[in-house]
Amino acid sequence: MIKTVRELTDAASLKGMFHEHREGAPLPSAKSLKEVVELCRAIFFPGFFGNPNVSEHTIGYHIGVEVERLQSVLMEEVGLSEEVTMKFLQRLPELRRILATDVEAAYNGDPAAENYDEIISCYPIIKAIANYRIAHELLVLGVPLIPRFITEMAHSETGIDIHPAATIGHHFTIDHGTGVVIGATCIIGNNVKLYQGVTLGAKSFPLDENGNPIKGIPRHPILEDNVIVYSNATVLGRITLGKGTIIGGNLWVTKSTQPGEVRVQKTTPVPPEEGMKIIYGDYI
Amino acid sequence: MIKTVRELTDAASLKGMFHEHREGAPLPSAKSLKEVVELCRAIFFPGFFGNPNVSEHTIGYHIGVEVERLQSVLMEEVGLSEEVTMKFLQRLPELRRILATDVEAAYNGDPAAENYDEIISCYPIIKAIANYRIAHELLVLGVPLIPRFITEMAHSETGIDIHPAATIGHHFTIDHGTGVVIGATCIIGNNVKLYQGVTLGAKSFPLDENGNPIKGIPRHPILEDNVIVYSNATVLGRITLGKGTIIGGNLWVTKSTQPGEVRVQKTTPVPPEEGMKIIYGDYI
Amino acid sequence: MIKTVRELTDAASLKGMFHEHREGAPLPSAKSLKEVVELCRAIFFPGFFGNPNVSEHTIGYHIGVEVERLQSVLMEEVGLSEEVTMKFLQRLPELRRILATDVEAAYNGDPAAENYDEIISCYPIIKAIANYRIAHELLVLGVPLIPRFITEMAHSETGIDIHPAATIGHHFTIDHGTGVVIGATCIIGNNVKLYQGVTLGAKSFPLDENGNPIKGIPRHPILEDNVIVYSNATVLGRITLGKGTIIGGNLWVTKSTQPGEVRVQKTTPVPPEEGMKIIYGDYI
Amino acid sequence: MIKTVRELTDAASLKGMFHEHREGAPLPSAKSLKEVVELCRAIFFPGFFGNPNVSEHTIGYHIGVEVERLQSVLMEEVGLSEEVTMKFLQRLPELRRILATDVEAAYNGDPAAENYDEIISCYPIIKAIANYRIAHELLVLGVPLIPRFITEMAHSETGIDIHPAATIGHHFTIDHGTGVVIGATCIIGNNVKLYQGVTLGAKSFPLDENGNPIKGIPRHPILEDNVIVYSNATVLGRITLGKGTIIGGNLWVTKSTQPGEVRVQKTTPVPPEEGMKIIYGDYI
Amino acid sequence: MIKTVRELTDAASLKGMFHEHREGAPLPSAKSLKEVVELCRAIFFPGFFGNPNVSEHTIGYHIGVEVERLQSVLMEEVGLSEEVTMKFLQRLPELRRILATDVEAAYNGDPAAENYDEIISCYPIIKAIANYRIAHELLVLGVPLIPRFITEMAHSETGIDIHPAATIGHHFTIDHGTGVVIGATCIIGNNVKLYQGVTLGAKSFPLDENGNPIKGIPRHPILEDNVIVYSNATVLGRITLGKGTIIGGNLWVTKSTQPGEVRVQKTTPVPPEEGMKIIYGDYI
Amino acid sequence: MIKTVRELTDAASLKGMFHEHREGAPLPSAKSLKEVVELCRAIFFPGFFGNPNVSEHTIGYHIGVEVERLQSVLMEEVGLSEEVTMKFLQRLPELRRILATDVEAAYNGDPAAENYDEIISCYPIIKAIANYRIAHELLVLGVPLIPRFITEMAHSETGIDIHPAATIGHHFTIDHGTGVVIGATCIIGNNVKLYQGVTLGAKSFPLDENGNPIKGIPRHPILEDNVIVYSNATVLGRITLGKGTIIGGNLWVTKSTQPGEVRVQKTTPVPPEEGMKIIYGDYI
Repeated sequence: MIKTVRELTDAASLKGMFHEHREGAPLPSAKSLKEVVELCRAIFFPGFFGNPNVSEHTIGYHIGVEVERLQSVLMEEVGLSEEVTMKFLQRLPELRRILATDVEAAYNGDPAAENYDEIISCYPIIKAIANYRIAHELLVLGVPLIPRFITEMAHSETGIDIHPAATIGHHFTIDHGTGVVIGATCIIGNNVKLYQGVTLGAKSFPLDENGNPIKGIPRHPILEDNVIVYSNATVLGRITLGKGTIIGGNLWVTKSTQPGEVRVQKTTPVPPEEGMKIIYGDYI
Repeated sequence: MIKTVRELTDAASLKGMFHEHREGAPLPSAKSLKEVVELCRAIFFPGFFGNPNVSEHTIGYHIGVEVERLQSVLMEEVGLSEEVTMKFLQRLPELRRILATDVEAAYNGDPAAENYDEIISCYPIIKAIANYRIAHELLVLGVPLIPRFITEMAHSETGIDIHPAATIGHHFTIDHGTGVVIGATCIIGNNVKLYQGVTLGAKSFPLDENGNPIKGIPRHPILEDNVIVYSNATVLGRITLGKGTIIGGNLWVTKSTQPGEVRVQKTTPVPPEEGMKIIYGDYI
Repeated sequence: MIKTVRELTDAASLKGMFHEHREGAPLPSAKSLKEVVELCRAIFFPGFFGNPNVSEHTIGYHIGVEVERLQSVLMEEVGLSEEVTMKFLQRLPELRRILATDVEAAYNGDPAAENYDEIISCYPIIKAIANYRIAHELLVLGVPLIPRFITEMAHSETGIDIHPAATIGHHFTIDHGTGVVIGATCIIGNNVKLYQGVTLGAKSFPLDENGNPIKGIPRHPILEDNVIVYSNATVLGRITLGKGTIIGGNLWVTKSTQPGEVRVQKTTPVPPEEGMKIIYGDYI
Repeated sequence: MIKTVRELTDAASLKGMFHEHREGAPLPSAKSLKEVVELCRAIFFPGFFGNPNVSEHTIGYHIGVEVERLQSVLMEEVGLSEEVTMKFLQRLPELRRILATDVEAAYNGDPAAENYDEIISCYPIIKAIANYRIAHELLVLGVPLIPRFITEMAHSETGIDIHPAATIGHHFTIDHGTGVVIGATCIIGNNVKLYQGVTLGAKSFPLDENGNPIKGIPRHPILEDNVIVYSNATVLGRITLGKGTIIGGNLWVTKSTQPGEVRVQKTTPVPPEEGMKIIYGDYI
Repeated sequence: MIKTVRELTDAASLKGMFHEHREGAPLPSAKSLKEVVELCRAIFFPGFFGNPNVSEHTIGYHIGVEVERLQSVLMEEVGLSEEVTMKFLQRLPELRRILATDVEAAYNGDPAAENYDEIISCYPIIKAIANYRIAHELLVLGVPLIPRFITEMAHSETGIDIHPAATIGHHFTIDHGTGVVIGATCIIGNNVKLYQGVTLGAKSFPLDENGNPIKGIPRHPILEDNVIVYSNATVLGRITLGKGTIIGGNLWVTKSTQPGEVRVQKTTPVPPEEGMKIIYGDYI
Repeated sequence: MIKTVRELTDAASLKGMFHEHREGAPLPSAKSLKEVVELCRAIFFPGFFGNPNVSEHTIGYHIGVEVERLQSVLMEEVGLSEEVTMKFLQRLPELRRILATDVEAAYNGDPAAENYDEIISCYPIIKAIANYRIAHELLVLGVPLIPRFITEMAHSETGIDIHPAATIGHHFTIDHGTGVVIGATCIIGNNVKLYQGVTLGAKSFPLDENGNPIKGIPRHPILEDNVIVYSNATVLGRITLGKGTIIGGNLWVTKSTQPGEVRVQKTTPVPPEEGMKIIYGDYI
């Protein structure tokens, strides 16, 4: 065992794999960032997340304690400066205002839902969009790494992968959500709705004279207001889906659409190719 | 900070975002519902979930304690009435009988599996279908909200999203499962098998004279016995896939099929469109 | 309640659903296997997983304690023999060397990433590939069941489902990853990159004279070096994607490709079929 | 094992040893009562117990949340009525006022203490007297059993055993405290100080005609204002130690004293009795 | 730091301070022994310790699970042989029978107690005597070290220090208890009652020709049936307190007593010696 | 409830009871100080405290990780400066050397103990003296408050109350220990042994012209080498117990002794005073 430990401690073996304390600061622990997210959710949606017993009379106490704890975790455990922390805290009321429109969109988008309780408690988009809006805010304030960490936590929890650098308007919703990917330079308008498995990705990107990709080039789609994209569709490149565009499921889209355009897959069901013997049994 | 807390406590800002205790009851905590699911799994599959040391001689003790704890959590923490709780408990033996057929289907559907241990321990469908069958039972007993919460827990854990109101026969299985969505009015027969990424969704739904969707209209597919749907296929609307139908992967299906019908995608591989320069590198 | 417990304890009702201690050994607990994975990750990527405060001076202490704890958990809680445990521990340095190439591939594959920190902390592929490489090693050492358990843990966490029996070369990466499925007999070369929703599956498999599937038949694709498969593509059967092949998104591929071949979907956007009224609202 | 379990479940064997749920209510859990005490201490001494980060600006939030949680635990977990709970909560400010005098007494009684921080953080009397004052209040409100439980928790923690029915004035303190016992009918004035090992006990009690002890008879000492009792003294029976009395250590006192009286042990050191060979070694 | 670690790892520095795994077995963890005690208490006193919700109908399940868990902890974590474990488990019903007499003695000894609930929940003697009876049983079965550990746990919790090798009859009780010490060769009859601070110790012990103490020599008191010893009395040496003897508080006793003998301290209160100025203030 | 909260938040009501963050630093949490003690114990006595599986081969790793964690907790959570922390860490080897003599003294003082394992695992003095030696070291380094906190933790755990400012030589031990009190200016030589209930206290202290006690005056006893004090004896004032003095149990000692002097209590057992009717029953 001694030999194995020695090999594993060898400097060459550790190159790039070792986040060394002192050299840089230690990374904020996953536990601290999880607490940040839980506190924000409890502040945004009291009674749904955090302590379920909060009442009209005591909500002020609860939010006070949560905001203070949030400040303390952000500064002492996550390592943000006091200035950034304070700016972030001041944005919380506005973030709740936008999240309220997302809840409304999810509710209007699913008439089966009987009330907001069901939306806020059970719809994965609420967790994903809350994490995105927190992360985006931190990214705008110049915080490195943490925003990615926070959206990735929602990705693991919901299967919805939204890059914190994307821009997303109000009344945004995604139904079911598993497998959705939204790229870093996406610009999404208001009242946009996606379904599970939708990719808003890049198609290619220009290289500089040395063959290295040029950073920060807009390379993901723009979705104008009121666009709907159905399940498993893939939309690629810096194209624009005009206002009110509807994209049917399982489509591969690489060209811009006119406002109001509707596209669906042309289904060509055919008998199976020869030699393909589909049977009950092991598929993979 | 005081100002921020005041804004966040403002009644208008909280509208719809705040589940207030006293007005309604507090929501059952995610922790309690997680325990409900863990107890049910331990009761259904002793030795696989819950205490791994249970033996032939002591199983009666374990199940006794677990059923009692389940009763206590359902009544005191989840807030069900004694009547509903008792009816649910009485259904547990029948639920296990059906789950045993699901285990059998998963085993028969994957000859690579050497025994039931591997199926019950490692296949995500077991967790998803167990949560669905628990949730469906509670929904049938008239319990609101909780069923959605329970299937959503499995959704987060497995990527499989089954609405608790769907009807699903015995010997049901899903392979891999990530991205599967099964809508609320689906009716699924016996011996049905799905693969990852399959959507059984709605295509549209009728509006009433006020332009509001009419609730409770059947709008999702019916899959008769022995149907197989391969990965990433999308099946939409109140259509019927006849007995023994096979749907190939990545298909978009909006019309009913005859019994025994087999449909696969007609693949048309083409050279990439002009201007598309696919290279190693950043896709999103 | 007594009656329900009696029914649930009934031997017939338990058949196949009950992992009995004493008959076989107890199953290793999910908690122990989770610790195994956490220890391995902390050993592979010190400062990123496990204690974040590790420094150049103390890393030897940390890795020593972690390797010892890993040995103890594997032998006493997971139940491996001393021989297998020791062989596994000796493989850890080599596993880190390969994982370093996977980190490099993820970094080179996403120029937006500013440094390795972001890759190791936030990219789900790192968790999925680390679990796969651990599990594959144990499977090669003849350990039953546990390898499936370990890759399934990553599946739940990341939506990426890699069978531990698959063979995967160095510099392997998957972007986003949700919904990816890699079958048991896949052979994947070096420098291969996949995107979310890709299936590398089986198409059919031969039956023996009794109608039972023949085990261990190669039935999943071979991907040679430098292959890229874009999102939601489905590649089925024992076909070979030649060196440098590129498969576009949402494709259904059942035939081998030549080295350097590029295939993309022929998009045929059409107006929606008659009677399909897509509106804002409930999709599922 | 079956036989042992059967014997242990036998009704006769359980007689008096089994607190049966349903017959009576379940006993409040030790965990809930521990939380009650922790919450009260955090409310009485903010920053010393409970969250250490409380500040002038946020103390209102903290105390609000703590009082609400206290109410919830007392009603839902400890099982008090709403009326009793509310009366108890209303007494909290007065209890803090009295405890402030106890802190002052401990501080004045030990000039070595540099500030109140040291007293509140480190002196066991603070924990013991806080628990006593909580318990006494509940006993006055007619709550059964719980008060004993709460003082016994302090007994285990500090070695100080104060019966909740005793009456104790303001500015009360005990130095060191281990081994102190204060009986149920003690009446203790203001500014009284005890040292470790002091017993304020009963000497005898009258029997009724059937030979059973008559309940509720005053049988423990009365200590008037400003009394001091030094370590390990035993004071027994319904006697009165007059105002300002001082009792020296290790005394056995069964008669009342005049105000201002001072009594100490008459020490008679003698050579050890014959045959007693005290050596280094095993004493017990 | 490196230097300090090296010094602390130095073999000479570790001599006698290091319990090395492999050389001997690892010591059972404090956590495991704590669980043993908690399980025994839950088995002896269901509803008081362990799960408070146990009812007439479910008690068999609870005790079954607890006995099984106890067996598992004793064998796998504490390291007892199967034979010793089984013998110990078979003694549990008898241990409960004796503990029932101890509860009765505590109840009869304190007429203020209204019911057994108060005794079992709140009286420290119950915890101390339960631990002693468990520990004594294990010691009789030849288990080393563990018995001392278990009585020391009660010592820390209650201030009552009973050596597991002492012999104690039925209906034994101690009131308050802090500071009580009962030596290894004590023999205590039935219906004996002690108060806080009582020592039953050794006075001296014979040395062998090399000046080493002779082991196992009876050196602590014998208390016959119905003896009472009041608080802080010290009883030393292999003397016998005859049936029904009563020893008053704070006495120093080194000679045997006749049956029925009553001894109390002759109190000689005197004015304080010259120069002793007792004032309010720092005593220690 | 609002009113109660307002009263409890009132500034006057909080005076002296509120440790405000920001004004001073927050108090180190009890949890952090508990970890400090656990780490020190694990470092001093590997295999007995902390991880029980440490072996000859891995002890270096364990102590390395523990020392590093100790440094981190002391600096970041307890708030010590780097200089003080480093000086304290450098003293650890010396502290272990002295503690080894204390273990030896406990072992030699109780021939019944079969080995060091029993001493280190089960004897409360080990915990009390380890905490004292840690606390004394910090006090010498000028750390305020924390030392008192650490000895008070041992007081709660063992009933032994040693002031961190006392001076104690090597080979020190206390048998049983409950109720022992050792004052701040005590000077204790080498090879000293105490028993349970012993007080080494102050008798009086001089006042300055304003009637305030003069701080720092030596006011507790000096015990020279090889002194033994038996159970419940009280030794008061700045007297000197000469080398080898033996004090018998329950004595009240306020005068110095000659080297080698032996004092025991003159026992005067008398019949009980008139009217004292000692019976079975309620003592307190």
